[in-house]
Amino acid sequence: MTLINQLNSQDEFVGFYLLKEVEIKQTNNTPPKDYLDIILCDSSGELPAKLWDASALDKETFFPMGLVKVKGLVQTYREKLQIKILQIRPAKEEDQVKLTDFIRSAPVPSDTLVQTITKIVQEIKDPELREIVEFCVQKVENQLEQAPAAKTHHHNYYGGLAYHMVRMLELGEFLCKQRPFLNADLLKAGIILHDIAKPEEMVARLGIVSEYSVPGKLLGHIAMASSWITEAALKLGIAADSPKVIALQHLVLSHHNLGEWGSPVQPQMAEAVALHHIDALDAKMQMVEDAMNTTPDKDEWTPMIRGLENKAIYKTRI
Amino acid sequence: MTLINQLNSQDEFVGFYLLKEVEIKQTNNTPPKDYLDIILCDSSGELPAKLWDASALDKETFFPMGLVKVKGLVQTYREKLQIKILQIRPAKEEDQVKLTDFIRSAPVPSDTLVQTITKIVQEIKDPELREIVEFCVQKVENQLEQAPAAKTHHHNYYGGLAYHMVRMLELGEFLCKQRPFLNADLLKAGIILHDIAKPEEMVARLGIVSEYSVPGKLLGHIAMASSWITEAALKLGIAADSPKVIALQHLVLSHHNLGEWGSPVQPQMAEAVALHHIDALDAKMQMVEDAMNTTPDKDEWTPMIRGLENKAIYKTRI
Amino acid sequence: MTLINQLNSQDEFVGFYLLKEVEIKQTNNTPPKDYLDIILCDSSGELPAKLWDASALDKETFFPMGLVKVKGLVQTYREKLQIKILQIRPAKEEDQVKLTDFIRSAPVPSDTLVQTITKIVQEIKDPELREIVEFCVQKVENQLEQAPAAKTHHHNYYGGLAYHMVRMLELGEFLCKQRPFLNADLLKAGIILHDIAKPEEMVARLGIVSEYSVPGKLLGHIAMASSWITEAALKLGIAADSPKVIALQHLVLSHHNLGEWGSPVQPQMAEAVALHHIDALDAKMQMVEDAMNTTPDKDEWTPMIRGLENKAIYKTRI
Amino acid sequence: MTLINQLNSQDEFVGFYLLKEVEIKQTNNTPPKDYLDIILCDSSGELPAKLWDASALDKETFFPMGLVKVKGLVQTYREKLQIKILQIRPAKEEDQVKLTDFIRSAPVPSDTLVQTITKIVQEIKDPELREIVEFCVQKVENQLEQAPAAKTHHHNYYGGLAYHMVRMLELGEFLCKQRPFLNADLLKAGIILHDIAKPEEMVARLGIVSEYSVPGKLLGHIAMASSWITEAALKLGIAADSPKVIALQHLVLSHHNLGEWGSPVQPQMAEAVALHHIDALDAKMQMVEDAMNTTPDKDEWTPMIRGLENKAIYKTRI
Amino acid sequence: MTLINQLNSQDEFVGFYLLKEVEIKQTNNTPPKDYLDIILCDSSGELPAKLWDASALDKETFFPMGLVKVKGLVQTYREKLQIKILQIRPAKEEDQVKLTDFIRSAPVPSDTLVQTITKIVQEIKDPELREIVEFCVQKVENQLEQAPAAKTHHHNYYGGLAYHMVRMLELGEFLCKQRPFLNADLLKAGIILHDIAKPEEMVARLGIVSEYSVPGKLLGHIAMASSWITEAALKLGIAADSPKVIALQHLVLSHHNLGEWGSPVQPQMAEAVALHHIDALDAKMQMVEDAMNTTPDKDEWTPMIRGLENKAIYKTRI
Amino acid sequence: MTLINQLNSQDEFVGFYLLKEVEIKQTNNTPPKDYLDIILCDSSGELPAKLWDASALDKETFFPMGLVKVKGLVQTYREKLQIKILQIRPAKEEDQVKLTDFIRSAPVPSDTLVQTITKIVQEIKDPELREIVEFCVQKVENQLEQAPAAKTHHHNYYGGLAYHMVRMLELGEFLCKQRPFLNADLLKAGIILHDIAKPEEMVARLGIVSEYSVPGKLLGHIAMASSWITEAALKLGIAADSPKVIALQHLVLSHHNLGEWGSPVQPQMAEAVALHHIDALDAKMQMVEDAMNTTPDKDEWTPMIRGLENKAIYKTRI
Repeated sequence: MTLINQLNSQDEFVGFYLLKEVEIKQTNNTPPKDYLDIILCDSSGELPAKLWDASALDKETFFPMGLVKVKGLVQTYREKLQIKILQIRPAKEEDQVKLTDFIRSAPVPSDTLVQTITKIVQEIKDPELREIVEFCVQKVENQLEQAPAAKTHHHNYYGGLAYHMVRMLELGEFLCKQRPFLNADLLKAGIILHDIAKPEEMVARLGIVSEYSVPGKLLGHIAMASSWITEAALKLGIAADSPKVIALQHLVLSHHNLGEWGSPVQPQMAEAVALHHIDALDAKMQMVEDAMNTTPDKDEWTPMIRGLENKAIYKTRI
Repeated sequence: MTLINQLNSQDEFVGFYLLKEVEIKQTNNTPPKDYLDIILCDSSGELPAKLWDASALDKETFFPMGLVKVKGLVQTYREKLQIKILQIRPAKEEDQVKLTDFIRSAPVPSDTLVQTITKIVQEIKDPELREIVEFCVQKVENQLEQAPAAKTHHHNYYGGLAYHMVRMLELGEFLCKQRPFLNADLLKAGIILHDIAKPEEMVARLGIVSEYSVPGKLLGHIAMASSWITEAALKLGIAADSPKVIALQHLVLSHHNLGEWGSPVQPQMAEAVALHHIDALDAKMQMVEDAMNTTPDKDEWTPMIRGLENKAIYKTRI
Repeated sequence: MTLINQLNSQDEFVGFYLLKEVEIKQTNNTPPKDYLDIILCDSSGELPAKLWDASALDKETFFPMGLVKVKGLVQTYREKLQIKILQIRPAKEEDQVKLTDFIRSAPVPSDTLVQTITKIVQEIKDPELREIVEFCVQKVENQLEQAPAAKTHHHNYYGGLAYHMVRMLELGEFLCKQRPFLNADLLKAGIILHDIAKPEEMVARLGIVSEYSVPGKLLGHIAMASSWITEAALKLGIAADSPKVIALQHLVLSHHNLGEWGSPVQPQMAEAVALHHIDALDAKMQMVEDAMNTTPDKDEWTPMIRGLENKAIYKTRI
Repeated sequence: MTLINQLNSQDEFVGFYLLKEVEIKQTNNTPPKDYLDIILCDSSGELPAKLWDASALDKETFFPMGLVKVKGLVQTYREKLQIKILQIRPAKEEDQVKLTDFIRSAPVPSDTLVQTITKIVQEIKDPELREIVEFCVQKVENQLEQAPAAKTHHHNYYGGLAYHMVRMLELGEFLCKQRPFLNADLLKAGIILHDIAKPEEMVARLGIVSEYSVPGKLLGHIAMASSWITEAALKLGIAADSPKVIALQHLVLSHHNLGEWGSPVQPQMAEAVALHHIDALDAKMQMVEDAMNTTPDKDEWTPMIRGLENKAIYKTRI
Repeated sequence: MTLINQLNSQDEFVGFYLLKEVEIKQTNNTPPKDYLDIILCDSSGELPAKLWDASALDKETFFPMGLVKVKGLVQTYREKLQIKILQIRPAKEEDQVKLTDFIRSAPVPSDTLVQTITKIVQEIKDPELREIVEFCVQKVENQLEQAPAAKTHHHNYYGGLAYHMVRMLELGEFLCKQRPFLNADLLKAGIILHDIAKPEEMVARLGIVSEYSVPGKLLGHIAMASSWITEAALKLGIAADSPKVIALQHLVLSHHNLGEWGSPVQPQMAEAVALHHIDALDAKMQMVEDAMNTTPDKDEWTPMIRGLENKAIYKTRI
Repeated sequence: MTLINQLNSQDEFVGFYLLKEVEIKQTNNTPPKDYLDIILCDSSGELPAKLWDASALDKETFFPMGLVKVKGLVQTYREKLQIKILQIRPAKEEDQVKLTDFIRSAPVPSDTLVQTITKIVQEIKDPELREIVEFCVQKVENQLEQAPAAKTHHHNYYGGLAYHMVRMLELGEFLCKQRPFLNADLLKAGIILHDIAKPEEMVARLGIVSEYSVPGKLLGHIAMASSWITEAALKLGIAADSPKVIALQHLVLSHHNLGEWGSPVQPQMAEAVALHHIDALDAKMQMVEDAMNTTPDKDEWTPMIRGLENKAIYKTRI
């Protein structure tokens, strides 16, 4: 079975793929005809595909996030590859293919990432901080293996959020060694909670965000996480205005650094400054790494990256 | 007893005043001598005053927010009036003067304002919104009569916060008549709660803010009020993620309109748009009105007002 | 006759509509064929329509802003409704349909709005302010019933400008009651004149703006209205540099508040501050209300609104 | 008689100077004593001066903008020169000194500058443009010889405005030769009128601005000049909405280029673009030249210049 | 042979043109067919053209920047002219047409421009400045006749860079006469070197930029030119930190005036201020002039111009 | 000998200190008297000091950066400590005190830091990158032990630059382990060279910057370092436009990330993105750490820190 990113123009192929998006469209013929405009993907990448002259049955059969078996021909359209679908059917029980094999995901297995996070939570020495973190992590425990860290910006894939957390925890541990005056418990707690409400802010399946939720738009993940901490404190019998609770909320609220980036307050504790810069460093480096990995080998430059001042990255290694 | 704003250069006077600020300073003589640098105020305004050659006893006797009896001489220093203190002593029991007669306050009595707010809370028809509002108002009920709405920006005096609320409630009621599609209960609740955490954000006495509190700096009144709503919902048995709770938090979180003004989300409900613009209209008009009232009659222009694009207001009536 | 906003996919219908826009386009066939790309509207809304295989006669018969009788079929194209025109002809005398029945307009009849404005002009007590306002209103009196307040931003329909004025006058009257130090005559005059040059700034027919005029682009409605006040003063024998004339020009010039929003000076009189904030409140609330009214009932969110920080409004009522 | 810029520390001198500013201040002694804090100037520069122990008579005798005879001693105070006044009296009739000999002024005599401007006005071929320019110039003809172009920014001295006009007219003439498609009449008219209302925007005497006028603050020189053009057209029987009038107003309104710099519209005619850039070039170069001329020879750098991105200029010639 | 800008709708014509761009595209037919999407140009302008039903041979025959003989029909597509190609072949030896006759170029012959520049280089009196300028100019001497000054912004055609230099040198000479304190040698050197690295920053052929080079993106022409000056000094035996070298680098580095426009330092020498403003004046005026020349006579307004605050220019002459 | 940061009000003490700044000032007495306004410091901090009634000899004896023996009395002036000098004399040979014992310095000995840097330079595997780095480091080798990284912003003390480099190298090493696709040689080289020109940009002695140098102001350390790389390449026989040279210059030029922060190009290589974020993380954390260390124990908050959005840091440990 050929991986998406190994298909070349004029190849004819048969294989299983994930039908990531599907839309019924009309050709510009007079009168117009219906066709299915499709995105096929697997773990290696994605390509647009067309099913010309879609029947009424076709239009009722195919839905986003379903696995399909496709016979297709690779064509070039406006300098980009595109698949002309010759035959297509939904995958069946007996095909023995599973969805998770077809999606893009973090380079470390999700369950390993979640175990690492769980372990580090247990290493938080301060019992109150630890319990608050546990409470908030439990709220999303069913989603943590899958959740991406963003819709498109960075770590936007299966397990992306957990991967971002783990990398930041590594950086945080190193920084605490460099600068022992930092409160390691507080920094760990802040790293784990800073984006903890993202799975509720966005509606995602298998790491692919389809839209923002209503609370996600009206409150945002920053205020949501801050409220979760309040809720945790109340339920755990910790005073909601105790210094630890306030410190932890401060780290969450300030982690975007500036008001125009969504933080209602700016970092005013050493650990809050550290959290913001560790977050920025990890997110930006991941944008670079992902863009380099998904840009075809022959290209010298990645596409422009919105989160990097809208600049492309020069890939050629010196 | 002469009011502060009626003292003229060269007047000699005796009277009771509030010693709003006092600091021990040194003259530039060689060697330097200690003197007390003082702000005297009453309900009509304030003036700087000096007690030259302060004794060790003087330095231990006078503290901010105390009432004093002063015999003084009005001088002009760098084109501004300044009092040379000839005699000064703390007010005594038998002087029968009370602090509240000497402070600047809202033009409507504070208890009337609080009664009005209490009455309007009771008029909120939706029982859940009403109970959440009651819960949050109770948190500051001891401070509501006194609390100012800001340190310097607007409504910065005794009862300023309650006065701001009441005026906004009047505007809100009018707007709901003009545009009946607005949810009047939600708008009322939003108006009452938008600044409800200000008494905890700032440390104030008698309407005079001395500094921001630690939670005030680290969280800000917007995130604090949002957390109070979470707390209210939890304690009242209302789901923290029910639409009403989210809507009310949205109004509070978005009322500064822009990230750079401190709101982590922007208004995305009709009532949130209304709340922001009613708040802006009332705050700006009060800045104008207060500046006009406290600028001497002879001046054509008020001082520059930071909240009005740093412009002075032309007072002369046409 | 079915209203535009009640047409559903697959409906076949016959009715009169306003042909708001029409453009000759080519299909992508080889060789391409001409068709008419049309916007049909009535008072309830608008829909795109196609007349495929347009004849030479068709191309000469249909022009923007004409009434037409249409037999059509409602189709879905890219998830949106679109009309396939089966038959079309211009409306005739004997059809007895009139243009004004087919356009979107303010919710209050335009003649009533203009009468209200005229009445309020007469209530301005200061004779000089009143005469200046009368002079400027007369300049656009033929357009005032129809003129929109903007091309797309807000109140962009028949009578939109007059409606905006009347609502602002109501708010202004309320504010003058709340804050009696305001000069009610000046505020009324400012409200009526602040956008008075808009009908000359934009070329509009029946409330639909086709483009900005040359003076509209080179001078803008703010400088135009300011010059009209100069002209009024000169013709009425009032000194062009008298305090009233300057105050009224100041209100007009400063009503956009900031330089980057088009005001060469910032508000520096109490009434100018009031004018700006009343204008903002009314315009923003109308954007919200119009967006909610024209978004299909089934949608939870309106489209993004440029004038509201490019945010969508959550329509669902709690 | 020694020029101000030739006085050195420890010099004792006698001479006539202009008393540019005088203020009664108090020493920090206990009790404080009155002294006069003075700025003395002549055409070469200015220095601060003190008259210690000022008598009641002294305080009533000396006013800003008067000529005085001074016997003084040059001292160094905080690394800057300062004059200790030993004796001072107002100049008398018989001293035969005149004010205009003591002020800073443009390097070309003012009457020559005004003659040049008058001559160029006469060279405008288009009679309507010429008459409008004449009308507006006449409004300030009594002030044109003296008026500065700004309070502090650039050309802030006797004849500064006329000097700025003449230099810009030279640049404009050169540019019209380089680019003959430009309308030389319109550019000339625009150059002469762009700052023509400055003498009414600011209150100045002998080129020294004391403050902004009320119309200057409420309208600004840009809107004022635009209204003058309207007035000129009306009085000369030229239609206020004729293309020439609109074009000329456009040049004036747009000459600050951006909204945040005070222009309600941006340049949209070739001559408007030219006007803005000629204005910028001349103003910035004059800031540089004036800063270099008034910085002591021994300094490598001028002070920071607000209009040049707050940068100092490196004076040393290579 | 008809010039591009004289073709009208429905004209049939035969002639030679430059094939500026060519792309293989597909029609939206089912199945799609290939066609060539082409830009044809000559010295008077450019038009889009289509070769429908392109053969395999066609797809291999035509490349950008080739001369072709075309028989075509002018059609209107979406209100714009477009050529339907009836016949097309590459130009042959015997056709005796040459590329340079078909490209847009500066209004003064390129060799004349380069001679003028060479002459002015020789007029720089200071031998070190002159030799550094010579060294840097030599680096691009093969490209200077052709190089444009920008990709799209201004002077984007054959000889555009040299033309920009010459015009700026004229303005610089005039300014040095107006303000003799300027160092004419330094200003000349700065003008010639400020954009000297542009031919290396962009990949261009015949004045048409296809893309930015790798060093162009990673370093930018400003830093490149600064390094060339270092290199020149080293090779000429001039100390790299001598005042002249630093001054010249300062002019180059600061000529965009602000950090957000690409200058790492701001102008801090008189000649640097002059250079920036001469550059701005010449570039902006050329944008205006080019836009006016290439907009059809019948249009009142040019298209919007990005470099002029995204405003269109009103072409109509008054 | 008491350390500066252990002196309390009313202490009388004798000891050696560094006279960091000294200025002759005058009291406000009539007539004023001269006194010396001094900053005394040692490695623990600094305090203002006054020598009242300074004699002519005193004024000629004391200069900045000299060691002195002082007998003094600690007083409180405007709530801050200040030393009244009772006796003072310059340190003599026989006092056997040395300057370097009295200055603030990095927490790691400077020679160790320089050795670490030297060692890491040798570990750069690519010979061309290594030699370029060696060349540039040699240019400042005499200053590297002492040089601060900034005037006031961060690492502003003896050895501050080397300390900043070493910490960044540690972070860079860790990041290269986390993300092995990074070119470790290039990142090391970029870290060492990014601020390498700072010792030439600023005039410093013993880690205390007195001012910016002329090349520092006119070129800035970013352009200077870029030119040094050019110089290195030329002298080492490496092509100035080879990919390695361009990459290294790109890292240096882009390390401030944005034009408004001084970078003429933005990061467009993975290592450039890494360099910017490592630099930011280390600089900001050091600002926090230094502010916490130099704020008195009793204070809950540090002073406001310009480089941290002008926020104070909450010191209290939770």
